[in-house]
Amino acid sequence: MAATLVTPTAINPLRAGMRGTRTIEPCVVVVFGATGDLTHRKLIPALYNLALEQPMPAELSVVGVGRRPLDNNEFRQQALDAVDKFSRRRPVNPNVWETFSRGLFYCQAPFDDPDGYVRLKNLLDQLDRDRGTLGNRIFYLSTQPSYYPTIIENLREADMARRGRPPGSGWARIVVEKPFGHNLESAQGLNDLLSTAFREDQIFRIDHYLGKETVQNIMVLRFGNGVFEPIWNRRYIDSVQITAAESLGIEGRAAYYNEAGALRDMIQNHVMQLLALVAMEPPANFGADSVRDEKVKVLRSIPPMREAEIVADTVRGQYGAGWIGGEHVPGFVEESGIPPTSRTETFVALKLQIDNWRWAGVPFYIRTGKRLTKRITEVAIQFRRPPYLLFRDIGADKLQSNVLSLRIQPNEGISLRVEAKVPGQEMRIRPVNMEFFYGRAFGVEPPEAYERLLLDCMYGDSTLFTRRDETELAWGLVDSIAHAWDHPPATGIPRYEPGTSGPREADTLIERDERTWRRL
Amino acid sequence: MAATLVTPTAINPLRAGMRGTRTIEPCVVVVFGATGDLTHRKLIPALYNLALEQPMPAELSVVGVGRRPLDNNEFRQQALDAVDKFSRRRPVNPNVWETFSRGLFYCQAPFDDPDGYVRLKNLLDQLDRDRGTLGNRIFYLSTQPSYYPTIIENLREADMARRGRPPGSGWARIVVEKPFGHNLESAQGLNDLLSTAFREDQIFRIDHYLGKETVQNIMVLRFGNGVFEPIWNRRYIDSVQITAAESLGIEGRAAYYNEAGALRDMIQNHVMQLLALVAMEPPANFGADSVRDEKVKVLRSIPPMREAEIVADTVRGQYGAGWIGGEHVPGFVEESGIPPTSRTETFVALKLQIDNWRWAGVPFYIRTGKRLTKRITEVAIQFRRPPYLLFRDIGADKLQSNVLSLRIQPNEGISLRVEAKVPGQEMRIRPVNMEFFYGRAFGVEPPEAYERLLLDCMYGDSTLFTRRDETELAWGLVDSIAHAWDHPPATGIPRYEPGTSGPREADTLIERDERTWRRL
Repeated sequence: MAATLVTPTAINPLRAGMRGTRTIEPCVVVVFGATGDLTHRKLIPALYNLALEQPMPAELSVVGVGRRPLDNNEFRQQALDAVDKFSRRRPVNPNVWETFSRGLFYCQAPFDDPDGYVRLKNLLDQLDRDRGTLGNRIFYLSTQPSYYPTIIENLREADMARRGRPPGSGWARIVVEKPFGHNLESAQGLNDLLSTAFREDQIFRIDHYLGKETVQNIMVLRFGNGVFEPIWNRRYIDSVQITAAESLGIEGRAAYYNEAGALRDMIQNHVMQLLALVAMEPPANFGADSVRDEKVKVLRSIPPMREAEIVADTVRGQYGAGWIGGEHVPGFVEESGIPPTSRTETFVALKLQIDNWRWAGVPFYIRTGKRLTKRITEVAIQFRRPPYLLFRDIGADKLQSNVLSLRIQPNEGISLRVEAKVPGQEMRIRPVNMEFFYGRAFGVEPPEAYERLLLDCMYGDSTLFTRRDETELAWGLVDSIAHAWDHPPATGIPRYEPGTSGPREADTLIERDERTWRRL
Repeated sequence: MAATLVTPTAINPLRAGMRGTRTIEPCVVVVFGATGDLTHRKLIPALYNLALEQPMPAELSVVGVGRRPLDNNEFRQQALDAVDKFSRRRPVNPNVWETFSRGLFYCQAPFDDPDGYVRLKNLLDQLDRDRGTLGNRIFYLSTQPSYYPTIIENLREADMARRGRPPGSGWARIVVEKPFGHNLESAQGLNDLLSTAFREDQIFRIDHYLGKETVQNIMVLRFGNGVFEPIWNRRYIDSVQITAAESLGIEGRAAYYNEAGALRDMIQNHVMQLLALVAMEPPANFGADSVRDEKVKVLRSIPPMREAEIVADTVRGQYGAGWIGGEHVPGFVEESGIPPTSRTETFVALKLQIDNWRWAGVPFYIRTGKRLTKRITEVAIQFRRPPYLLFRDIGADKLQSNVLSLRIQPNEGISLRVEAKVPGQEMRIRPVNMEFFYGRAFGVEPPEAYERLLLDCMYGDSTLFTRRDETELAWGLVDSIAHAWDHPPATGIPRYEPGTSGPREADTLIERDERTWRRL
């Protein structure tokens, strides 16, 4: 595991990239919430897999910060258990683990105790001396969101945020997990607080969807190929469908989910990010701000929805009790921790417009929900039919339109539905799929989203992270919908049977336009 | 095997098709050259497979005409042997064969003996009475081409061509196998002779490539889908490559092939047909003349090649002796029956332009040859690169352009080469294929081209047959090339090694334009 040479260009890895290979500087990843679920399931395994597959600097260190009293060895054992259980690549490679675990440290610190931050700072300074981490730190907020303000303030007060420090004296970056606020106001408040401690280019708001291969591939597909961009507009596209369906229920996240609901949990972040990538104009280059400028332009082009439009163009639902695969599952309000009167939505369908030259008049149909038929996330570009049906004469009058489907999960891949002649002496026409799957095409399992995103953060590349304006624009849209739903307060919420495609009202929403949802 | 009901609309099956299902009228298929190779390998098996899979009229009868003395039973036994050996579907179904073979008859008649035609006429009249074939005949010329004029004249003199007969008194159609003439003059002569006996709508010039599934699918793909036609023009297409490569040598067809050569054997018919289908404008409808009008327009838009252009833009070659797959194979001039001084080409590469609004400036690169690396026939649409390489900054500066490849044989299918992100933490881009294969998609083996074409002829649908003007335009082009090659007479011809992609000169032809042939 040789360290990549540290070069001055590494200070701005985007620029560095233009000149050659990106490099990673030695640094410490400081994880707040070191004993939490996300840390065990995702962060520690991702860091270990990076150590396994990437040339990482030997100096790379990880400090877990938590309230529980642990020593380094106990933390290392917990980390080993986490890798053993959740790592993409298993079994654990003893040599890699040996080197990796020597860089793991634990710092006990209640998040609201300034003394704990002094201890943390001392530990980090010592790692700079002992392990050569050069004063570079990534602070990863993996705690409950209610702790974010406290941690940010304490980092600022302990002078660890390093805002405005001269170049070369070490850098600090902060990764903020979702949910980023629970409405526009709280997101703005969090952003304001962050900006008292960190510059925008130090802040990495994570949306793990952006780390998924197929999501990144949307840009490659659109702008690395000559055949798609010419037809990627209102002249050839009839409509776009974005689906993020889950078959599971809330799986123990009752308190969070009952507060959030599907609109905040899925639409505000993941779905709006997908929509922005699909709809954006070609950026000037692949740099972080160029790409995010274009995404922001898309979000700005979504016209504010008036209340009447929200009534007409949005549908929410809540799953009832029922049967999935021969097993009885409780309804949302019967889940442990959910009040029986909860009107929180577990399903949202909505129709959005993007008012610009490319998309005017092309509806974007969006749906997300829990306890649906199956787990699938995809973007489906529905093209217009050919303007004239040449084959009408000979009985093939039911041509289907082309669909380019970008499958985010599972079975990541891309497929194009085309009409083809059925083999045989008669002229019969049937849709077939031209497709490729990541697994089959590349013969490797795609890496976890967190690996890519942690690596990008180490590089200082924030292309795949959400900028302040993106976050706030998405919250603005979501807030207007949530506000309309609550004024006047809903007296009920449509129920849907588990294992179905959601409430009947969602079908009505799209059938009104003489279209149908893609089958789940 | 129920006969389809005969309805008056069946008289014009194209119109009939517009109103419902096409119907087949009772008829007799008269095969001249009943004991020949094509008849055994293709025609008899195709007729049997139609009987097996299609609802055919019970009255359908087949009369073999040949010089050899055979009785009906001997002819039926030969036919059974042919089906047993060459049928797509085997083993022979005894029930279907029983019914089918009762409709098989033999008529001994030297092709130049008027008495033979009297015997044939008497037999056909008797079949009308005995089997109810209603005076409808398909004459299939499956003999050596030198007999065509004799047979056509005798059919006319024996009043079997039925040109100008009133509707309802039975129809006659004639199927003419390739080669249709050996140059423009002889093709015109043959057409003139045919027109003394048959109207153009009675004449079915067969090019079995048009019966292949993927060839028919070119029209469905182009005009049944919304996504291809918008980019099917000079603005988005860089160039088109048509390849018809064989790995075999001349396989015993020495006399014919030494006269014909690759230009006449492949380019004049198959390749020009593929080119016309790929390049044509959308026809007004799917009727025979609408489609062929558009194909003719393409052929008319190919500018006549001046001699200097022929020198620059065409390459011919002849295979030498060498090794394929560890086996020694003779050179063309060492093949039995080929004179050692033969300069006949077994390979042609050429570059054509189509001077119209859609294609101006888009070169069509064509190559065909024997004893090449492998057997493959395909049309490859090479798209332009994206106008701006967004990913240049980050090392992916070698984007390949998109290619839509229509595979005619073997492994019929369609694939689109797109650039996609390689899974992994870095942004690396690599081409992958989105594809579908007929076999995999439909789970059935496509029928033989001859089945489709015989059936169409029974319907009276000549969409997939070559019209007089098409044939003559293609011969005009081929003649101009052949003429330039012979003036002054070539003193030699480039040799190429068997198992390669042809002579080096062919590479030069395309590399001059900074392009390369697709790998065989």
